Amino acid sequence: MNLNTPEQVPFELLHLELVSQVIHSDSAVSAANSSPTSQLELLGYNTGYRFIERLAKDYPKFKDELDLLKFICKDFWVAVFRKQIDNLRTNHQGVYVLQDNSFRFLSKASQDRQYLEASPKFVAFTCGLVRGSLANLGVSTVVTAEVTSMPACKFQVQVQRA
Amino acid sequence: MNLNTPEQVPFELLHLELVSQVIHSDSAVSAANSSPTSQLELLGYNTGYRFIERLAKDYPKFKDELDLLKFICKDFWVAVFRKQIDNLRTNHQGVYVLQDNSFRFLSKASQDRQYLEASPKFVAFTCGLVRGSLANLGVSTVVTAEVTSMPACKFQVQVQRA
Repeated sequence: MNLNTPEQVPFELLHLELVSQVIHSDSAVSAANSSPTSQLELLGYNTGYRFIERLAKDYPKFKDELDLLKFICKDFWVAVFRKQIDNLRTNHQGVYVLQDNSFRFLSKASQDRQYLEASPKFVAFTCGLVRGSLANLGVSTVVTAEVTSMPACKFQVQVQRA
Repeated sequence: MNLNTPEQVPFELLHLELVSQVIHSDSAVSAANSSPTSQLELLGYNTGYRFIERLAKDYPKFKDELDLLKFICKDFWVAVFRKQIDNLRTNHQGVYVLQDNSFRFLSKASQDRQYLEASPKFVAFTCGLVRGSLANLGVSTVVTAEVTSMPACKFQVQVQRA
């Protein structure tokens, strides 16, 4: 199966350009209120907030938080990245770890240490995407990501209880 | 046929967020060297430059400029927007007018005059996308767009002769 269909490519390349802009504007834009990386996160948040609205509208109600997270790992991830999350773990206390062994936004980056150092910029948009999606469904979270060996990535979702 | 497949939606929504950012940051960012609209155009240029590389790599050589523009109207437009350009006209002197009667990036905007006024921001990325694609194939152009009645849009490509 060719996962890299032409339909998917404009989205990936647009994302890559945004990351590239952020990498090259680091010092210049830091004068503004928020860092470029957090701007990418916010862009992801807004995109995710709108996206889940369409994606989940024909979906039956989620039974619980875990059911919702499973939806993110399957339907949501497939719709955005054309693959499922490879592994989902939880401590059953509001922390979920979503592991993607071949995260699409990293799969074309090389293994260079230089890229590993820049990896926060490659994952910021997606952290926001997940956070915004869950927020729209009433779940407030903090989402972080960890890249240890390219192109694998672990997203940690920590639910904020009121 | 449902043109609005989930795969397409993240791209559209990401674009919409970028436009929205540009609309809301107009005054603030004008201190920088380039206007937000021209930043969108440049983002499109870079995305198009990379995108056409992949799309055209298995394609036979283009016979001439018109053949290349037809490729943009068909394969390229379908890959990005999932529809073809509806009408292509040329004066055979380096000016091409590509008409899209239902331009995807406008199809969800309302007919309000307010939107018509903001329409340059909705088309800037795509003008850049076309300009970057043609640039990669060795054709230097100026690309502008005109929105007279939503969601139709006319892109004018003017080839720059050396």
